Amino acid sequence: MSKKLHIVKVGGHLVNDETALQEVLAAFAKIDAPKLLVHGGGRHATALAKQLGITPQMVEGRRITDADMLDVAVMSYAGLANKKIVAQLQELGVNAIGLSGADGNCIEAVKRPVKDIDYGFVGDVVVVHADVFSTLAANHFVPVLCAITHNKEGQLLNTNADTIAAQVAIALSNTFDVKLFYCFEHAGVLHDISTPDKVMETLTEAQTHTFVAEGVIHQGMVPKLHNGFDALKNGVNEVIISNINALTNTNAPKTTLQ
Amino acid sequence: MSKKLHIVKVGGHLVNDETALQEVLAAFAKIDAPKLLVHGGGRHATALAKQLGITPQMVEGRRITDADMLDVAVMSYAGLANKKIVAQLQELGVNAIGLSGADGNCIEAVKRPVKDIDYGFVGDVVVVHADVFSTLAANHFVPVLCAITHNKEGQLLNTNADTIAAQVAIALSNTFDVKLFYCFEHAGVLHDISTPDKVMETLTEAQTHTFVAEGVIHQGMVPKLHNGFDALKNGVNEVIISNINALTNTNAPKTTLQ
Repeated sequence: MSKKLHIVKVGGHLVNDETALQEVLAAFAKIDAPKLLVHGGGRHATALAKQLGITPQMVEGRRITDADMLDVAVMSYAGLANKKIVAQLQELGVNAIGLSGADGNCIEAVKRPVKDIDYGFVGDVVVVHADVFSTLAANHFVPVLCAITHNKEGQLLNTNADTIAAQVAIALSNTFDVKLFYCFEHAGVLHDISTPDKVMETLTEAQTHTFVAEGVIHQGMVPKLHNGFDALKNGVNEVIISNINALTNTNAPKTTLQ
Repeated sequence: MSKKLHIVKVGGHLVNDETALQEVLAAFAKIDAPKLLVHGGGRHATALAKQLGITPQMVEGRRITDADMLDVAVMSYAGLANKKIVAQLQELGVNAIGLSGADGNCIEAVKRPVKDIDYGFVGDVVVVHADVFSTLAANHFVPVLCAITHNKEGQLLNTNADTIAAQVAIALSNTFDVKLFYCFEHAGVLHDISTPDKVMETLTEAQTHTFVAEGVIHQGMVPKLHNGFDALKNGVNEVIISNINALTNTNAPKTTLQ
């Protein structure tokens, strides 16, 4: 059996709320196994862009990352969010090291090819260099990854944090038993938002299709679930969607993908 | 004899000028020895603060880092500047990994004690954990350090990049033969700004005191020289003040501290 590795992705909602973030990091610190954190960015970048007079470009509900917006994302995700998280984890005794995909060339991406929409400086992950993470882990560092990658040609790229978490988990599943947590504000995938304590204990891909068609699962959950099932089908041992309670308490409510 | 290590500090002026930065990084990439880059921040943070309506607080010519200004510094130095440099070095085949002092807890600082002036969130370096840098170097990473540290109690701190370069150089001089370059826009310390090709080949601390008193050396150079002599007196093998030519050409004009 390989060594265990816990990969925890925390969403932007939790990152932007100081109290929520402290709780997340305290729970992450308590995980008694090799671990890696992936964090989203969230509203701070949007607020910063607004303050700087940059109008977020949206096409078909998708954000377009122009050069100015990329700078804002890099400042917000790789700068402020990443370093605050690293400093707080260090206080908690976790030997965190903050990374973008450019650092150590750990994640190479390609600027998303233009079909109908030019998304701008958005990166699709091409390769995760798992050896960078295993080298850091072997030297007792705990990687903290933000949602910025690069193309190895000098260009930084904005990349979806859920996808980064899944791709890193898949790449590391060759050498570790990987448990991937998508950690957000709810206890798991819900049957109904009005009963947030009624969590789907398990969820298959087929059920997901049905629930999405029936409107039980909200469209916003779909990319996360897509990434989760991708991870599960490609070597990741366990994929869990939950709030932070599931990080430290195996009996806490959660949704386990199957 | 120990293994050689080149530490190059590049100033904010070079970091903020895209062409100059490309030249610096190309020269840095050509250094055929273990190496480490420390970069300043410079005007971008000031411009960003202005855009965000933050008025830089100055007391006796020293910038005060309030909470808003710290966020700006973290975004600008640890975010935009650091990640752009890392991505460009990766393009040049240098396995750069960007770090603040919080990352891997490589540099611990303390909030500068308030005497006459409260400098705000400014950090004085307390300890450099040399093992973090040697571990990274042993694993073929090239650390790229920005001028942000932390206090190990969750607080990020703005720290002078020249001081970081000197303190890291001193800490690493126990295990490496360290050559420290302070790289800026001139070929070295000048006798006269109007004859920029007339460089002081060597400079002692006693000469520095005389030149400063005579107004030959500008006040702005004093902290850099102070850090340089501090490094030289505490185990660093060679301290050079120069432009980028001296990085790759041992015959290029430069000032060597003695």
